Amino acid sequence: MFRPEIKVVDCTIRDGGLTNDSHFTLETVRAVYDAICASGVDYVELGYRNSKEMFSPAEFGPWRFCDEDQLRRVTDGIDPRGTKISVMQDAHKASAEDVLPADESVVDLIRVATYVKDIDKAIHLAKNATDKGYECTINVMAISHEGSPFLDEALQQVEQETAASAVYIVDSFGALYSEEVHFLVEKYQMFLKTKEVGAHFHNNQQLAFANTIEAIIRGANYLDGTLYGLGRAAGNCPLELLLGFLKNPKFDLAPVLDVIARTILPLRDQIDWGYHIPFMLTGVLDQHPREAMALMKSDRKDDFVGFYRSLTEDPGE
Amino acid sequence: MFRPEIKVVDCTIRDGGLTNDSHFTLETVRAVYDAICASGVDYVELGYRNSKEMFSPAEFGPWRFCDEDQLRRVTDGIDPRGTKISVMQDAHKASAEDVLPADESVVDLIRVATYVKDIDKAIHLAKNATDKGYECTINVMAISHEGSPFLDEALQQVEQETAASAVYIVDSFGALYSEEVHFLVEKYQMFLKTKEVGAHFHNNQQLAFANTIEAIIRGANYLDGTLYGLGRAAGNCPLELLLGFLKNPKFDLAPVLDVIARTILPLRDQIDWGYHIPFMLTGVLDQHPREAMALMKSDRKDDFVGFYRSLTEDPGE
Repeated sequence: MFRPEIKVVDCTIRDGGLTNDSHFTLETVRAVYDAICASGVDYVELGYRNSKEMFSPAEFGPWRFCDEDQLRRVTDGIDPRGTKISVMQDAHKASAEDVLPADESVVDLIRVATYVKDIDKAIHLAKNATDKGYECTINVMAISHEGSPFLDEALQQVEQETAASAVYIVDSFGALYSEEVHFLVEKYQMFLKTKEVGAHFHNNQQLAFANTIEAIIRGANYLDGTLYGLGRAAGNCPLELLLGFLKNPKFDLAPVLDVIARTILPLRDQIDWGYHIPFMLTGVLDQHPREAMALMKSDRKDDFVGFYRSLTEDPGE
Repeated sequence: MFRPEIKVVDCTIRDGGLTNDSHFTLETVRAVYDAICASGVDYVELGYRNSKEMFSPAEFGPWRFCDEDQLRRVTDGIDPRGTKISVMQDAHKASAEDVLPADESVVDLIRVATYVKDIDKAIHLAKNATDKGYECTINVMAISHEGSPFLDEALQQVEQETAASAVYIVDSFGALYSEEVHFLVEKYQMFLKTKEVGAHFHNNQQLAFANTIEAIIRGANYLDGTLYGLGRAAGNCPLELLLGFLKNPKFDLAPVLDVIARTILPLRDQIDWGYHIPFMLTGVLDQHPREAMALMKSDRKDDFVGFYRSLTEDPGE
């Protein structure tokens, strides 16, 4: 009863890196890599391949840049068992020059994250990636703020001008409900005749897993999850729930459960992801979680009513 | 754009009472009651009206019995502002004699929780309730384990033999996916021509809110939520998310946020509800959470792989 076309991407280290400026230890990243390879998940995303001119290596950890030698320290001695490696490039913060020819790299897939307004930059990076021999996807962020006609034009352009395998719906604000997911998957399919639709959802309203299921039902075949939902703000679709839902016998839940117990749960001492009222409020209101993240670090983190009032204040005409 | 027929039931104290043997302080229950009345939510369920022969008052707190004088200590001096009071009776653990005539009670609604096999007992208690002047619903528990034809027969019986206003789908195991919710709402509607469909979902797979939305989309009009999802195992549909989704201007989110900050979050020192891998596993496997609850209290609570193996062990022929 499973759909063999479905590809699952674990992006624990990449999206989780937004919570700690990509400062995971090598030991943590190796443990995640090993577990994902053992679980049969199709891709594991080990971080960003972003520009050192846009992000200071003094401030950000190695998984913001994913230098090839750093990635080889992760893979060294671990059998990939079919799992491929992904890195993400931000359309407006990454450089084509940082990408080696694929046959000199341990990376298999480059995912280009973009806002609709930066679609030309994204297409440039996507072409760079496929020209150099990588698989590629384009991940359209903040989708809940993108209306027609610009989104439609961007999808049309991506369809015509790139060899990307998939284009993602990225609900950066955790604001989408199931009917909007249905609408977006169908819109994507209308424009993307040669590409798959991808789903990357945030959990601000506890809907990341549910929305992933709704995207699957409508035909999305590239699905993102993270271990125990680790990721920005309330986090992502929990990979363990996604594998529990997908019936493909190639997936093994046991290594996923094991790495969550040993490696991911202990991170809660340093990182406070998951469902919290401030994230829930920005999700309900379809706003960027940045104000909620700032509140969570302040001494007013439990002043939910004051925060709600500040978010809903009438901006005037 | 809202549906005025929708009734929301807050069951924080009742379902939350399954986590602490109904030992909330009077102060906590008064704070919840006041906040729910201020929020415009239709019903607030203050506990069970179960039998003192089935539950020892030495072991269980007052919200397992909801004596009338105890309920009056809750309501004393608080303006209900239109919010009605509910109590729940377990079909196999409650007595008709414990129910006064409605005009001598502060209770408005009696909800009878039942397994399909106990439907005759439930109908007896439902008739008792409506004969004495109460509103009534019947809440069919463990629905993910109930297949045709017994469920169908029970629905038909309830339709013909009772004056209940609504019949609930109760996903006690947190196991349902959206397509099963759609199927069940439609099945209920097929049999219940004179009654509404209700939705009570558990969050073991982070789907309680999403499944409530799916039930709304298919026409369910009685919806349960609890403050911050407080409830058995992974808890319930968070009331704050449900109110954020419903567009009815009669609801006010602010008192809900306030009581969560002041009264509900501090309970986390004593009660460990919410998403945890053991609950997730029983949800995925459509099993009662009792083994997960036992594990969570043991020193093996992080042995997820061992627990998973024990749950999936082949029982033999």
